[in-house]
Amino acid sequence: MNYDHFFADAIDALRKERRYRIFAEIERDASRFPRAVWHSPGGPRDIVVWCSNDYLGMGSHPKVVEAMCGAAQARGAGAGGTRNISGNSHEIVMLERELADLHGKEQGLVFTSGYISNATGISTIVKLIPDCVVISDELNHNSMIEGVRQGGRQKAIFRHNDLGHLEELLKAAGDRPKLVAFESVYSMDGDIAPMAGICDLAEKYGAMTYLDEVHAVGMYGPRGAGVAERDGVMHRIDVIEGTLGKAFGVVGGYITGKRTVIDAVRSYAPGFIFTTALPPAIAAAAAASVRHLKESQAEREGQRAQVAKVKAALAAAGLPTMETPTHIVPVMVGDAKACKMASDLLLAEYGIYIQPINYPTVPRGTERLRITPTPFHDDALIAHLARALSDVWERLELPYADRAAERADNQRRTALGPAPIPVPVAGG
Amino acid sequence: MNYDHFFADAIDALRKERRYRIFAEIERDASRFPRAVWHSPGGPRDIVVWCSNDYLGMGSHPKVVEAMCGAAQARGAGAGGTRNISGNSHEIVMLERELADLHGKEQGLVFTSGYISNATGISTIVKLIPDCVVISDELNHNSMIEGVRQGGRQKAIFRHNDLGHLEELLKAAGDRPKLVAFESVYSMDGDIAPMAGICDLAEKYGAMTYLDEVHAVGMYGPRGAGVAERDGVMHRIDVIEGTLGKAFGVVGGYITGKRTVIDAVRSYAPGFIFTTALPPAIAAAAAASVRHLKESQAEREGQRAQVAKVKAALAAAGLPTMETPTHIVPVMVGDAKACKMASDLLLAEYGIYIQPINYPTVPRGTERLRITPTPFHDDALIAHLARALSDVWERLELPYADRAAERADNQRRTALGPAPIPVPVAGG
Repeated sequence: MNYDHFFADAIDALRKERRYRIFAEIERDASRFPRAVWHSPGGPRDIVVWCSNDYLGMGSHPKVVEAMCGAAQARGAGAGGTRNISGNSHEIVMLERELADLHGKEQGLVFTSGYISNATGISTIVKLIPDCVVISDELNHNSMIEGVRQGGRQKAIFRHNDLGHLEELLKAAGDRPKLVAFESVYSMDGDIAPMAGICDLAEKYGAMTYLDEVHAVGMYGPRGAGVAERDGVMHRIDVIEGTLGKAFGVVGGYITGKRTVIDAVRSYAPGFIFTTALPPAIAAAAAASVRHLKESQAEREGQRAQVAKVKAALAAAGLPTMETPTHIVPVMVGDAKACKMASDLLLAEYGIYIQPINYPTVPRGTERLRITPTPFHDDALIAHLARALSDVWERLELPYADRAAERADNQRRTALGPAPIPVPVAGG
Repeated sequence: MNYDHFFADAIDALRKERRYRIFAEIERDASRFPRAVWHSPGGPRDIVVWCSNDYLGMGSHPKVVEAMCGAAQARGAGAGGTRNISGNSHEIVMLERELADLHGKEQGLVFTSGYISNATGISTIVKLIPDCVVISDELNHNSMIEGVRQGGRQKAIFRHNDLGHLEELLKAAGDRPKLVAFESVYSMDGDIAPMAGICDLAEKYGAMTYLDEVHAVGMYGPRGAGVAERDGVMHRIDVIEGTLGKAFGVVGGYITGKRTVIDAVRSYAPGFIFTTALPPAIAAAAAASVRHLKESQAEREGQRAQVAKVKAALAAAGLPTMETPTHIVPVMVGDAKACKMASDLLLAEYGIYIQPINYPTVPRGTERLRITPTPFHDDALIAHLARALSDVWERLELPYADRAAERADNQRRTALGPAPIPVPVAGG
């Protein structure tokens, strides 16, 4: 039997829908962040990365790089085993203490990625609560959806950030145990959950809360613990999940919470138990980053300032930016092909790298360029970005603010939950 | 509603069964591998790690550590995004070429861990093959079981390494598409699959093959591609999965195969798409390790020599080692409590760290110490190990070779597949 056609057909399907993706191969330059070299078809080219999730440039911070190299030299490149079998390094234990302290929780637990934190974290938690109903925001990340699905409990999806709908579902679940799963900053629209309102409802109806702060840790709150810290509700959330791979600039994920909850996940989660631990060098680098951002306001202030300037510059140019209360600046295109063309043109002719965000990461008709300014995107780079975008908008005859706003108003979310075949996404 | 008791009860259940685990906190010392410092309750203590999956000590190899530090300094500590959104570093692309070349395949794809390679790799592959039956060895690792489960296809489990049973199941599946999923070296018993026989059957019945070589890559075959290379059947396997976190000494996992298969996984696998890429520093370190072990035989020869010496020394002492054709040396204890006591005693009084392997990683009655000698466990360390084990066996009145062999004969595997609550394991 020949199996090739199954895979070739799957690839063809993506090509036909213009959803087949080619990854841009880049070499970041720690000494010139956010600049990088793009390995273009025509050879190496200097570019500026405008779509990095290294939101604060901490991946290039000397403290972080030095911690990584110091630990690699002292301890070696890897952990050498699972946490249980010789891989429980001093560095990862220290990192977990740092993270517990960051979120004001009793304990932290580090995973190989944020994806795994959610997938094995949520699934393990709900498996340990008999008859639990999971009440999940409709725009939760794929990793949370996976966690809910793998948990195998009844689920109920509330309309995005809709407290009324959440309350309906909480009421409907009656006396059963309930877990409310949500994010603080939603990465594609850059909007923020009504945190206090969700906490109020969870308390009123006796639900446990699970919050994903991956697009917020490092950047919000006086110590960078996220939006829950900023909004003064951190102590009201049962489990806070975060990443070490975005604003903290390294790689890996974690959860924090009460000792019993975290210890149960540690003891029962297959995606934690059966996998090699993150290397001491990664743990040391991440801990250095977390520690730095607990004290330093410079990166957060720098980011806020440059984000505000980007928003102002694009608005002044009449470009259709979606208004957000965060560091995420979506510029609406509203068409998959046009979005890809705009991105290609920006990279090839302006040296500006912004990956297009198409369906199914965002609903059809709301395709966009998602811009993430860091403290290191200086005023000259911002001016260059605004000019380049204006040029591209004109050359491709892309829609300006009014039409895009209308599209955004009309946007309808795609159905959640796993498809029979997992759908590839532009956003990943 | 108070949720604490759900988690507290789950922990209590483990304590009652003596399966609650406390991780030994250690600091490896790259300059003195396999020596490390154990953060014992009484303070730091010098120990020798005898249970590391850094099988060849490559985590401490200067080439590997230098590659890691060099890339961290040049590129920063992290990748800054998913593979699709700014995280596709030159280093990870180069690593994938290195891995494809290693296994003689068209393409490679790197994941954040071997666990994720299997879980999202297998599930994506079988989702793309309508009506596929997955035929899986009963002792496959949890990550493969997860992949099969998440794939949602019909599954059939063949008795461990039993070609007759495999053939029965292949026949029973008739004309339907079939995927045979198996490992080369099984980590707990240290035995090896009948590779050529499995390939013969797969070809006879038109099945696709998926092979996990995580406990073999780096160590078997003239270029360290694994048992399939050694046995001359590498070209007959469709997908070969491996890890960067064991003999290669770093962290991460991968699959290799035909371009279409790998490209389909790249394009459809949620556990690949939606997660931050491994840092360039990790990719560079792993590539250096793979490259080195393609050429150098010294590590493999050194390991074989020291493994043979360990086996001979333990046999001479009458200790109940399980015979294996690999680098894995299980010493049978046959009782969970005794196994834990032996391990504790070795660590506390002899400075020898060997994690106990208890149910459910291995069946009850086959609890064991699993020893993994590296090229760096020199003759003096081996002599010390044999003396210490003999002492402990006498002090705890543990069974010697005969009784243990009988237990091993009687061993029955536990049922596979996911339990309603994931079971915690000593082996993770």
